[in-house]
Amino acid sequence: MAKQERAARTRQSLIHAAAEVFAREGFAPASLATISRRAGVSNGALHFHFENKRALAQAVEDEAANVVRRLTEDVSARGGGSLRTLVDTTYALMARLADDVVLRAGFELGGDPARGEKPHLRGAWQRWVEDMLRRAQQEGALAEGVTPDGAAPAIVAATVGFQVLGSEDVEWLREERIGDFWGLMLPRLAHTVR
Amino acid sequence: MAKQERAARTRQSLIHAAAEVFAREGFAPASLATISRRAGVSNGALHFHFENKRALAQAVEDEAANVVRRLTEDVSARGGGSLRTLVDTTYALMARLADDVVLRAGFELGGDPARGEKPHLRGAWQRWVEDMLRRAQQEGALAEGVTPDGAAPAIVAATVGFQVLGSEDVEWLREERIGDFWGLMLPRLAHTVR
Repeated sequence: MAKQERAARTRQSLIHAAAEVFAREGFAPASLATISRRAGVSNGALHFHFENKRALAQAVEDEAANVVRRLTEDVSARGGGSLRTLVDTTYALMARLADDVVLRAGFELGGDPARGEKPHLRGAWQRWVEDMLRRAQQEGALAEGVTPDGAAPAIVAATVGFQVLGSEDVEWLREERIGDFWGLMLPRLAHTVR
Repeated sequence: MAKQERAARTRQSLIHAAAEVFAREGFAPASLATISRRAGVSNGALHFHFENKRALAQAVEDEAANVVRRLTEDVSARGGGSLRTLVDTTYALMARLADDVVLRAGFELGGDPARGEKPHLRGAWQRWVEDMLRRAQQEGALAEGVTPDGAAPAIVAATVGFQVLGSEDVEWLREERIGDFWGLMLPRLAHTVR
């Protein structure tokens, strides 16, 4: 294995181990020693890749943001209109949260006051939801009287709620629960041809 | 002032100061020295009332649970049916979250992994929402095809989402946002006489 490839793998192991420790303990109590042990690398190797715990948390959040970006792109590529893309992406996001600790830790780190950073993953998610709703409106897919600005906070709050509750208990991320949410929401949200 | 009354006031000051520090820093970084200084009492006085930081966090969460209980009782007392009580209570809860740091910290402490406790305030809220929806169903107030078990998770997720986002930015707790949520939700949720 080339030296560069090995370095990239070590970096990924560290991000994954950090995500596990952050998700379980929170940012403040997590120790670099625990993280490097879990990743199976030396403390020196950790410090070669990351200056400090803050940089490691940032890398977890960035990686989680990449996951969300790829996920929204994949679902968008299926076509079917922006409202459909929005709905399908929430299912894909919850399913992914259930088995991707980096994504879970990325969302949780944003809301950890000990870290003192703006929750940038939630912010990015919010902007994407708003964008999808604006497109849906342009496509004529929103019901009369429904505006992107009015609908976005309800959808962002619910999805953030499912994510937060799901980080305690994976039951919250089940497809049926998201389906029940949209079942209540969509009849009023979507324009239907009568 | 009687000795007992003075002790009760000191206890309340400590709970309030602890809530402020927990809400700003999270559980792990919060120091007892900062909390006692903020409450204007000695470290000794703090330890007279609370054995450790864990006991203080528990007191904040208990006090927040009392606030939620009183709030649900007050709104219930107005009458008007269980669905109405549920909706009105979410408005009252968000308004109260905006200006009650003990309530805010109580919810946040539940989700803080550093504390290693079950989020009991969220659990109590969930059970109350479920109970209200079951009563609403018995009262014939739920639309056909809507079940308490199906609707409760959507409502709990959204309200927890508003709470979590509101602890970062109070804008999320504004009445209009909650109104927009119910505006999308209620047409499908509630039975309407046609």
